[in-house]
Amino acid sequence: MPPKNERIPRATIRRLAVYLQTLERMLGNDENLVSSESLSQACAVNASQIRKDLTYFGEFGVRGVGYDVGRLISSIKQSLHIDRPWNCALAGAGNLGRALLGHREFRQRHYNIVAVFDTDPEKIGKSVGGVEVSCSRRMAEVLAGKNVQLGIITTPPDTAQTVANYMIEAGIRGILNYASAHIFTPPDVPVENVDFFNHLYALSFSISSKNR
Amino acid sequence: MPPKNERIPRATIRRLAVYLQTLERMLGNDENLVSSESLSQACAVNASQIRKDLTYFGEFGVRGVGYDVGRLISSIKQSLHIDRPWNCALAGAGNLGRALLGHREFRQRHYNIVAVFDTDPEKIGKSVGGVEVSCSRRMAEVLAGKNVQLGIITTPPDTAQTVANYMIEAGIRGILNYASAHIFTPPDVPVENVDFFNHLYALSFSISSKNR
Repeated sequence: MPPKNERIPRATIRRLAVYLQTLERMLGNDENLVSSESLSQACAVNASQIRKDLTYFGEFGVRGVGYDVGRLISSIKQSLHIDRPWNCALAGAGNLGRALLGHREFRQRHYNIVAVFDTDPEKIGKSVGGVEVSCSRRMAEVLAGKNVQLGIITTPPDTAQTVANYMIEAGIRGILNYASAHIFTPPDVPVENVDFFNHLYALSFSISSKNR
Repeated sequence: MPPKNERIPRATIRRLAVYLQTLERMLGNDENLVSSESLSQACAVNASQIRKDLTYFGEFGVRGVGYDVGRLISSIKQSLHIDRPWNCALAGAGNLGRALLGHREFRQRHYNIVAVFDTDPEKIGKSVGGVEVSCSRRMAEVLAGKNVQLGIITTPPDTAQTVANYMIEAGIRGILNYASAHIFTPPDVPVENVDFFNHLYALSFSISSKNR
């Protein structure tokens, strides 16, 4: 049984995303049982950490048998509330926005981009990835009644805050921010920043440290 | 003076990336001095954490005056070894690859994508973002003598390991992986995974938890 009112730590959610990805690949290969050791090897997370994370969700492996892959997937999805579709609004119809619209896994994981916004008159009214681009200023109007809870920002940094404000006004409940600018939201609208420069910096630092 | 042989913790590097982004915007606005309090507000990191992080780099603010913005930027860049250009090879000339090639900040931060690879015969030989696409199988040959240390993977998940192997063979020293597949490398070739589903999961979980 998944925990009901507990907070799942951010680091645990990160690992659960990795487990899910691996477990789904295993299920696709008709592997229906998995030991924490083989999950450990496939995910590059140590086995005791995995056992601890899964116990947290009330999942216990059977000694000598392991975990039921399908059940584990359902349990993780249910705990994270990702066992249902989520409608998303995308702001920024550039290359990155198009990449996300064309991303097979977005749909597979039930994140449906149902509305696209941009401020470029050249793009407004045209279809991108099967969705018509609307003017960002009309966001509240376009999203009314569409049950869209997630916003995705792929605009240039200097317009990120403006579209975030439109999203908040439109009733968006959480924002995935790809723009390399910090955006401010009310405390009840969480923001997750997808910043890849920290990854590049970590690699640069790691490579250079070894050269010394 | 930056630390010479110390490890900078991963979480610190993540925050440094945020500070840098904010400090560079301040410098662009001719703000030459900053207090840890105003940096704190702009970055949404608490001021004592910022002071601690900066002391670690030998940077001390002057009471009532603050930090010299330009000096702080140089010091952080020098410590992370990002004060020099890094040549990168990109594998996967799809929408995401094109988004990265067109990403202004990549060049601004001196990450130069000097070679692009794909396995699609339709793409090989064509130019994407000003760089000719080569066959992934020819990676070692194409990269020879080009001083490329970083590899970026934007392929579908099922080809990620194959191109990672080509990268390792070609002498790549670190890999930024956008493919949603775990890739295995020797211990001296670090991998940084850019996985955005954990961000979406965290938002879904956070929104749902509030609804209960």
